[in-house]
Amino acid sequence: MAHPKVENVAIVGGSGYGAAELLRILSSHPRVKVVRVLSRSNAGKEVADVHPNLRGFYGLKFSGAGIEEAAREASIVFFATPHKVAMGDVPKIVDSRGVRAIIDLSGDFRLKDPDLYRKYYKATHEAVDLLPGFVYGLPETNRALIRRARCLASPGCFPTGSLLALLPLAERGLLKGDVVVDAKTGSSGSGVDPSPTTHHPERAQDFRAYKMFEHQHEPEIVQCLRQAGAKDFGLTFIAHSAPMVRGIFTTAYVNLDMTAEEVRRLYRKHYRDEKFVRVVNGSPRCSVVAGTNFCDIGVAANGRKCVVMTAIDNLVKGGAGQAVQSMNIMRGFDETEGLWFPGTRP
Amino acid sequence: MAHPKVENVAIVGGSGYGAAELLRILSSHPRVKVVRVLSRSNAGKEVADVHPNLRGFYGLKFSGAGIEEAAREASIVFFATPHKVAMGDVPKIVDSRGVRAIIDLSGDFRLKDPDLYRKYYKATHEAVDLLPGFVYGLPETNRALIRRARCLASPGCFPTGSLLALLPLAERGLLKGDVVVDAKTGSSGSGVDPSPTTHHPERAQDFRAYKMFEHQHEPEIVQCLRQAGAKDFGLTFIAHSAPMVRGIFTTAYVNLDMTAEEVRRLYRKHYRDEKFVRVVNGSPRCSVVAGTNFCDIGVAANGRKCVVMTAIDNLVKGGAGQAVQSMNIMRGFDETEGLWFPGTRP
Amino acid sequence: MAHPKVENVAIVGGSGYGAAELLRILSSHPRVKVVRVLSRSNAGKEVADVHPNLRGFYGLKFSGAGIEEAAREASIVFFATPHKVAMGDVPKIVDSRGVRAIIDLSGDFRLKDPDLYRKYYKATHEAVDLLPGFVYGLPETNRALIRRARCLASPGCFPTGSLLALLPLAERGLLKGDVVVDAKTGSSGSGVDPSPTTHHPERAQDFRAYKMFEHQHEPEIVQCLRQAGAKDFGLTFIAHSAPMVRGIFTTAYVNLDMTAEEVRRLYRKHYRDEKFVRVVNGSPRCSVVAGTNFCDIGVAANGRKCVVMTAIDNLVKGGAGQAVQSMNIMRGFDETEGLWFPGTRP
Amino acid sequence: MAHPKVENVAIVGGSGYGAAELLRILSSHPRVKVVRVLSRSNAGKEVADVHPNLRGFYGLKFSGAGIEEAAREASIVFFATPHKVAMGDVPKIVDSRGVRAIIDLSGDFRLKDPDLYRKYYKATHEAVDLLPGFVYGLPETNRALIRRARCLASPGCFPTGSLLALLPLAERGLLKGDVVVDAKTGSSGSGVDPSPTTHHPERAQDFRAYKMFEHQHEPEIVQCLRQAGAKDFGLTFIAHSAPMVRGIFTTAYVNLDMTAEEVRRLYRKHYRDEKFVRVVNGSPRCSVVAGTNFCDIGVAANGRKCVVMTAIDNLVKGGAGQAVQSMNIMRGFDETEGLWFPGTRP
Repeated sequence: MAHPKVENVAIVGGSGYGAAELLRILSSHPRVKVVRVLSRSNAGKEVADVHPNLRGFYGLKFSGAGIEEAAREASIVFFATPHKVAMGDVPKIVDSRGVRAIIDLSGDFRLKDPDLYRKYYKATHEAVDLLPGFVYGLPETNRALIRRARCLASPGCFPTGSLLALLPLAERGLLKGDVVVDAKTGSSGSGVDPSPTTHHPERAQDFRAYKMFEHQHEPEIVQCLRQAGAKDFGLTFIAHSAPMVRGIFTTAYVNLDMTAEEVRRLYRKHYRDEKFVRVVNGSPRCSVVAGTNFCDIGVAANGRKCVVMTAIDNLVKGGAGQAVQSMNIMRGFDETEGLWFPGTRP
Repeated sequence: MAHPKVENVAIVGGSGYGAAELLRILSSHPRVKVVRVLSRSNAGKEVADVHPNLRGFYGLKFSGAGIEEAAREASIVFFATPHKVAMGDVPKIVDSRGVRAIIDLSGDFRLKDPDLYRKYYKATHEAVDLLPGFVYGLPETNRALIRRARCLASPGCFPTGSLLALLPLAERGLLKGDVVVDAKTGSSGSGVDPSPTTHHPERAQDFRAYKMFEHQHEPEIVQCLRQAGAKDFGLTFIAHSAPMVRGIFTTAYVNLDMTAEEVRRLYRKHYRDEKFVRVVNGSPRCSVVAGTNFCDIGVAANGRKCVVMTAIDNLVKGGAGQAVQSMNIMRGFDETEGLWFPGTRP
Repeated sequence: MAHPKVENVAIVGGSGYGAAELLRILSSHPRVKVVRVLSRSNAGKEVADVHPNLRGFYGLKFSGAGIEEAAREASIVFFATPHKVAMGDVPKIVDSRGVRAIIDLSGDFRLKDPDLYRKYYKATHEAVDLLPGFVYGLPETNRALIRRARCLASPGCFPTGSLLALLPLAERGLLKGDVVVDAKTGSSGSGVDPSPTTHHPERAQDFRAYKMFEHQHEPEIVQCLRQAGAKDFGLTFIAHSAPMVRGIFTTAYVNLDMTAEEVRRLYRKHYRDEKFVRVVNGSPRCSVVAGTNFCDIGVAANGRKCVVMTAIDNLVKGGAGQAVQSMNIMRGFDETEGLWFPGTRP
Repeated sequence: MAHPKVENVAIVGGSGYGAAELLRILSSHPRVKVVRVLSRSNAGKEVADVHPNLRGFYGLKFSGAGIEEAAREASIVFFATPHKVAMGDVPKIVDSRGVRAIIDLSGDFRLKDPDLYRKYYKATHEAVDLLPGFVYGLPETNRALIRRARCLASPGCFPTGSLLALLPLAERGLLKGDVVVDAKTGSSGSGVDPSPTTHHPERAQDFRAYKMFEHQHEPEIVQCLRQAGAKDFGLTFIAHSAPMVRGIFTTAYVNLDMTAEEVRRLYRKHYRDEKFVRVVNGSPRCSVVAGTNFCDIGVAANGRKCVVMTAIDNLVKGGAGQAVQSMNIMRGFDETEGLWFPGTRP
């Protein structure tokens, strides 16, 4: 058997946690090789000096080159940049012949409606013409489109947890009336830059809500639920900061006149072919999925009230892991390549 | 001016966190003196050997005496015992002439319906005849009754957070339809005994739900909301374990067609005379109220959807602090006596 | 009895954690009143908007006034400023007749040798002439001088933990040869400004050393030990960052041919009149002293090797609490005024 | 090329954290297959019901079978049991012909002197005759012996961190005089069973020392340093509990008249062929090695004083990972097999 060809990867936004996780995951991926990691702020530094966990795994230095140069070397380009960067850079490489996959981990190409983008991201979208070409990278609902995609908008962390909780109902027309999603995130979701809300003395023993009714992930969730067929529902989404590092726990409150066992069976059936979704008894737990690409789902019910709970690692299934999962699908690799590892206990 | 008389206090269940907080708070209370701390498991030990934070503040040893003996010395008796203890002990002292206040921090006398008690506490109530005589000790809604009470059922931690969020609506007839209460607690709510869910390696970076639709605090919340006048509502209450030590954060989702500013004004008006309730802008924070008797409340709204958030310390406003607040009211002391201190930052 | 006179206090550097703790402690102090809190960055804001724990306790706004104006109103001035501020400001008020106590919580006036200041603080000292007039504010060794002091340099957090461990030996001529002090601090010691080392995702599960052989607290410790009479010793001091919020744990390794019981007796005798030092059996614990002005001390010994361990709250006994303790001594108040409260459990 | 043969593995003590990590690591090991996991307390349960992180990776149930039965199926047997179990079980299988590797993660076969075992483990050793046959499994110093070993005593977590810090000096005759090792461990080192010192409310914000001068790892460290050639040294070892889950940080204070740069060069040279030791600039960090088999080492020096710092994950390089590393050496596999993965950031 001939050795399978290895594809070259470039990562834009190399200093952040998204890039750190991409690099961690791709370090053991047999089908790709990271050849360039762009970072303006750290250009010239060793990757391992910024991401010390990677010492011994990469000899690379951060590159201050432009996106076009990176695109000449790599057939796969990840954007692990803050919002508003990819929409400026993607147009410069979207026509590069050698680039076969553009995967954006930021929010720039998730919302189809540029007005929503303006409202929630407080900026005018600069690449509106490219929006239709981006496929939303949630494999559990969009695998067929992802397979054919060249440009991919990888989902946000909250939407991943919320959608995996609600899509089985949405796709069956069972999502109706008031839906409440109470979501709790670890501090790594705030990114690599220190801020008052991630200052350890303030965060270590705190719990609070934030961006109530204004979080940019809410319209992303609604858009996807509608695409899945949900119509007569109203979503209330509230994000909370929990004092852990990794993880998103989502508690979704829905109206559904089924027993817990029936709901669990429905979810088990729905996800039976999914490698990265595990329907568990009782509550899922953030610590169990930390560091992994798994989404654990639990359900509970009482009369017409039902609660669906999901736990993911915001930086893996809610970030870099999911992006690699989509890359695997896009490039015809085994979907679990680079991602098939369990979490730790404890 | 004559020096005010000091009353004697006995604490039953002295080894636990509830007792530790009672002792901490009462150490600076000018109107009472703790004369006896009962603990079978630690009888004979110095209080400070079990609660090392109290070294220098109490010379007492734990007493293995019976409740009757304690009641002979003390005019105020606190039960900081696990559920199912007070209902056995209270009958032995309820007729003691010298006992002027019996304050139970456990769940034994909160539910008026013994069938609910059996269902949620998995035990037959042993003092059903005493249930009507117990006043529910939430000063913000029940102050007049507390003033005349001799027997007091101090509220649970989740009910305190939930009720302070919902009572202003319930009392105005504004609580209607589906109400979701998503509550998150710190680990100290599990008490002093180690268990798998409070094992540091498992808890420190975890988040999970527990006792979904089976938590014993749900019927307590419903009972109080009904007493306050709420009728046509359905409560879904889900408790979660967060990786902090102290604090309960409650996110209550209600239907209410008012702006956030209008809701905030309503709450400010409702609680304007309450010393221990602070209506804040934005989200309340658990770390801000940790160690204190305050309940901070925040609101947000969008169309007919409204979110009311509360933060309390489960062991203070949700436990020992509230019990002392009620004691102050029952015995005619200043309501803030022993409790008027701010939290720390950070 | 006439009501005792209340003195006015001004705090410079009002936005930081030091000021937050001064304000918390002084809120219950019967002999002083905080009349002005200076903060350039927050001038005009409510104190409670920056320090939300204090809501309900202060009606003050931060003042952007100059130090001279503050000194006209207050007889006691605290500097809770970063290093290099007090040495510029103190000269402006040191001759103000109304100012009876100037208490600096920063490092500006602790080192008697301006060359050491330059070396460790990387700045030229601007008020060298004032250095001799500043008394080092560690009451347990310097009470007599503090009583007569008008200008006070309140000790650093690491020196407090280290000196309370070593002074009983130093003062008896028992501190000889190599002394190792391995110190561990919580994140609040880094102050209120977010930084990479206090970024919650990085700090929550980390442990590391920092500023090895370069920490500015090392010469401060050496200076005090020498003043106490220690001569033939060499100190190795290494500071570490631990993933807690509050607390400094100090492990001091000394040469001393005594049993643990003998050492403990020596320490008990040495500190028998000290209200804020508690010699405990076994190891002291940071969580036990958190939020309090106590220093707990434990000892262990084996042959000629001895270990002395101390636990303090870096912001209280290692900061604002100790500064208030010194203020009490300077102004003739009861030394425990405002400070006599236990910590919480848990 | 022929597919390499896969060997069967049995794990004794399957419920604990050591077994959980062995199972995690071996799940991706291409040369072995876990065929049996013994656990008396969980016999009959799915492995994934006890170690939920492993759901999807093992179909096994815990076995209540005796050690002899396990030894008939497996050529490699790991003991991940509490102390005092392996010394009873190993004699039953040590003569089994099919068993090629017995690897004990407990302390039973580490100390060559049964009197020391009795003193520190408070039990009489039951298999004294087997002690000489056990090789101490620290690959960085003992690789040649490990290669030929059939019975292996895998090092304790504290000894691993301490020895990797001190062996380069010991082997060169540079370890002399007083040596202080101040070690700090995460809570997972206490194992899977809840206890007061790992109760989250007590541990989350605490720091303390424990077992001062009585820790069973001290004689293990001394024994190895002596074997490496160190003679005229005296070790003071103090263990501390830090409020993190994983990690051991070791600060070793030695006498050595070299500059930091010289020491670093010495360590780099010493470990240049070691895959799992990384000599870093500045301080190592526990969070950087968490989940991995790496030991990061940093050094600092000042005159004749030198500090060597190491960071490991107590359950990996200080536990299961190191045991697998030794297994790889014993069975002729690539030493990094199953272990070559970086940690996460953050």
